[in-house]
Formats: sequence, structure tokens, C-alpha cells
Amino acid sequence: MITKIGWIGTGNLGTSIVKRLLNQGYEVYVYNRSKDKATKLGEFGAHVVPSPQHISYYCKLIFLCLSDEKAVQSVLFLNKNALFRNQENKLTIFDTSTISPKYAVEFSTNVAKFDSYYIESPVSGGPENAINGDLTTILAGHRGVINSNKHIIESFSKKVFEFYTPGKAQILKILNNLAESINLIGAAEVISMGKREGLSLEEMYDVFQSTRGNSRYMNVLFERLISPKDNVSASINVRLKDLHLASDIIQNNNFTPISELVHSLFQEIVNVMDGDLDQTACINLYNNEGDFNEGKKQNETTN
Amino acid sequence: MITKIGWIGTGNLGTSIVKRLLNQGYEVYVYNRSKDKATKLGEFGAHVVPSPQHISYYCKLIFLCLSDEKAVQSVLFLNKNALFRNQENKLTIFDTSTISPKYAVEFSTNVAKFDSYYIESPVSGGPENAINGDLTTILAGHRGVINSNKHIIESFSKKVFEFYTPGKAQILKILNNLAESINLIGAAEVISMGKREGLSLEEMYDVFQSTRGNSRYMNVLFERLISPKDNVSASINVRLKDLHLASDIIQNNNFTPISELVHSLFQEIVNVMDGDLDQTACINLYNNEGDFNEGKKQNETTN
Repeated sequence: MITKIGWIGTGNLGTSIVKRLLNQGYEVYVYNRSKDKATKLGEFGAHVVPSPQHISYYCKLIFLCLSDEKAVQSVLFLNKNALFRNQENKLTIFDTSTISPKYAVEFSTNVAKFDSYYIESPVSGGPENAINGDLTTILAGHRGVINSNKHIIESFSKKVFEFYTPGKAQILKILNNLAESINLIGAAEVISMGKREGLSLEEMYDVFQSTRGNSRYMNVLFERLISPKDNVSASINVRLKDLHLASDIIQNNNFTPISELVHSLFQEIVNVMDGDLDQTACINLYNNEGDFNEGKKQNETTN
Repeated sequence: MITKIGWIGTGNLGTSIVKRLLNQGYEVYVYNRSKDKATKLGEFGAHVVPSPQHISYYCKLIFLCLSDEKAVQSVLFLNKNALFRNQENKLTIFDTSTISPKYAVEFSTNVAKFDSYYIESPVSGGPENAINGDLTTILAGHRGVINSNKHIIESFSKKVFEFYTPGKAQILKILNNLAESINLIGAAEVISMGKREGLSLEEMYDVFQSTRGNSRYMNVLFERLISPKDNVSASINVRLKDLHLASDIIQNNNFTPISELVHSLFQEIVNVMDGDLDQTACINLYNNEGDFNEGKKQNETTN
């Protein structure tokens, strides 16, 4: 019998993982709030349904891939068609969204009241790795439930980590994303210095592949600068949301100067440019001859 | 005939590269200002000589591995036993030191007056990779001289980049080291946040190996935190020297907020701790319960 998988949330990442699951032979039922994005997956063999409750009618194993904790809360409990409205069936929820660890713990507790399971499952790698089954997935939740469903996670992940303490997967994911943002904006600053010194992107990319200043996100930035892409895999707004999550887990009086500066720089990109831009927007903070400060002044004048 | 190689400067890095060269069958003549460090290499088969001029008597191909541009200038021109005092022979200098691009250009011009060649050859990877021949080396200088000596560079490098414009190798090296410092202090901040959230070093290292927040210098830090090492491969002082070099190539009015903050944080480590410490000193900026600020206060009180 083919495993039926429910999938709620078909943005860039969700769409790529669903395509991978379909490609691996799973039967997937999809729902998305704005219907267009889900409809496209119909062409790839997904069953498109009109509400979360329809998903739970067909599937007991349901993945979420949503923008934030509010969206997760709505789909689980608050919407009129939420999964746990009038729910009599036992459901297993794998939530691939990146959300606050506090909410993850709360969802885990509240889903348990319905004799159901909530497993944190944030992923690292973006849509481009999802499509090839090369994500890294961090799971936290009930050990038995993780074990019996791990093969499904592995069908889109090259690496799977398991923890059994609620909140832990999200903490790791948020810290990872903070490191990404530090390395990204740091690489943007370094690359812009090199450009001013007359180095080409290609020669910097070539050398920095082999030297120890390299980071994975430096490579993501180089690749998008050298070959601009139409699709935005992780927008500045999404990055800023994740930096807010990092701020939430910084305790009072802790010394986190890099995080604070990086947070303020991404906020600045949203203020003077556009939060829907991709990672390459970072380099525009550092344009030749202080374009950034010019842009900022213009923005302040027009506002 | 065995190629005779002269080597001036046998600190941690120089010693490791010389060991590699000896291991690869080269005959190496070594000189170091403080003699002890050179003497040890005698046990590995190197010829230890008492001055730079002795080196040039035996070898026409000479490598430098010195702490800064002043030391290079002394060895090339200023010391009473400098290589180019009363020099009648044509020499080929490969300088593995990390120095200002301006000085590299000047050395190249001035060495040429002696019918000799100066090739910038900064390396990335540290002593631990030198010993296995796994350095990355960036060359800049005369194309023919690079070509005819490249096999020697390759004997200690897994990857060699060539440029023919003086200064270019140093710019790339300094930008690489800036990226290392950003990624290092960023990783220290992220790791310290994780520790406060109850994550172990081992589990963070395990997960962050596979996720996109990873950087090579994050790995260097994790490895030294998990298995502390006696040898300091790149001290905080060396890192700070390289950050000064980065500041030198930042032009007026350019926006480089990350570099400035990182520079000030490494300066802070030297002020409140000790510049001879290894990379793991960074984590102490972020000790639990604001130890850093406590340490700073104590330091200010006692000074």
C-alpha cells in the first residue's frame, strides 16, 4: 500500500519537497491557503484539496511547511477548518516550518491532548537541495513516531538528526540560520572589498573555495551573484524573521554584538531596499562609493 | 640533482612546511632569528645556518615565512646580513608571509633591481595542513618563475592559484583571513548561545557539519573546543595583525560595519585576556552570565 502523505503549505520549499516525495512514489495530498501554488502541484501528480480538514480525511501523516508559528497555530487549532477542530482521528504532524522553540513545545503538548503527535522537523538546504533529496532535517519529538516515519524524511534528506526533547530541533535550526546570516553578510562585506580592489567575482569564488575563510553561505552568495536566479529561495524577510527568533532565545544581559549588528543590517536592507529580494541584496549594502548611504538618505527624504 | 631550498622563518607554520619539504626529499637550509626554533629542524634533516647570507650562499631559491612586512624588509634589505646586501647572485624569493599588498608591490619592485624575483606566496590552512601537504597557496609574480618552481609549491599544497599582478595574492589572502575572523567570532557567539540553551558542543558540531550555517572556521573552532590542543596555530595576535591589514585596504568612507566590529572584538580579547591564546579564546568573550563583562571590569580595576 502506498503511503499517503498530507502536505500543508506549498511555498518554494514546500513545493520542492512535495515534488521530491511525488518523484519517490508517494501519494501526496496538498493544501495551501492561496490556492494557486497548490494547484500547480496537481500537474505533478499531487491531489489538491480545499482545506486542512480534507487533508486529515485522506491522510493520518501530515507535514506542515508554513511561514511562521502563527500560521502553524491557525492550521492546527484556530482556523475553522483547522486539523484539530472536531478531530477524532489520531494524527502525526511533522512540522518543517522554522518557528520559536517555545511554540514548538506548546504545540507538542497541545497536539498530545488529541492523542496525536507533533514532531519538529525543520530542514536546512533550501528548495534547490529539496528537489534532489539533499536536505538536512533535524527532528525532535516522540522516538517511536520518529523511527516509524524516518524513511519518509530520508526520502528528501541526505542527513537526518533525531532528538527527543521538544524545542531542541528548533533551537538548532535557529542557531544555524543565525550562523548563515552572519556568514552571508560577512561574505557580502568581504566580496565588496575585493571588488573595490579590482578582483572579479569569479577569481574570488575560485580562490575562496579552497581557503579557510570559506563558508557554505559564502558559496550560496557567490553562486547567485555570478548566475543570478529568478527564484528567491530565502528572502531577506524570511532571514529577518529567523533573526527575530534568534533574538527571542538570547537571554537578558547576554553579550551578542555580532547577532545584533547582523540583525540591524538585515533590517536596514528591508528599510532601504526590499525584503522580498534574495541573498544578493546584501551586496547592495556595500555598493561602490557608499551607494548604501546614498540610498538610505534618498529613502529618508522621500518618507 | 636535489633542489636546495633556503627557508627563513621557522615559526609554527614555517616549521611545518619545512618538515613537509624534507619529507618530500628536498634539501632545506634554514635560518631563524631566534635560533632554537631552527635548531629543532636540524633533527629532521635540515641544515641550520647562522644568517640569511649563509642561506643565499647555499640556495638561489629562498622562501620567507615571517610575521610581518617589517620582518620581511629586514631580511631582504635592512639587516646587516640581509639577502640583498652585497648580493651579486640572482635570487628567487617566495614569500609565504601575510603582509600588506602595498609592501608586496614595493618588495617586488626593489628585488627586481637586483636582477632577482619576488613572488608573493601566502598560504591558507595552517601548520596542521602544511604537514600533510594540504595547504592552499596563492601566488603572484613573474609567470615564468612561478611555472618553473610550481612543483615545489605543490609539494606542500593541495591547491595552487597563480596571478601575475603584484599585490593580488596578498589582497586575496587578507580578505580570506577577514572572512575567517568573521566566521570564527560569529561561530563563537552562536555556539555560546547554544551552550546556554543546554546544547552540547558535540551535538552542535554534529548537526552544523551538515547544515548551511557551517563554515570551515566554525569547524576549526569546534575541533579545538572539543579537543583542546597545546599548539597555537593562529594566535589572536596574528589574527589581529591580519585584521589591521584588512583595515588598511578599506578605503575612506567605505561601509564595513562587520569588519569594524570583529576587529574591535579581537582587540577586546587581547585587552582582557591574552593575545597569545588560540582561536578558542573567542568563546570566552561569551561566557555564561556575562563573564566577559566581569573580566573586563576586573581588568579595568587592576590597570
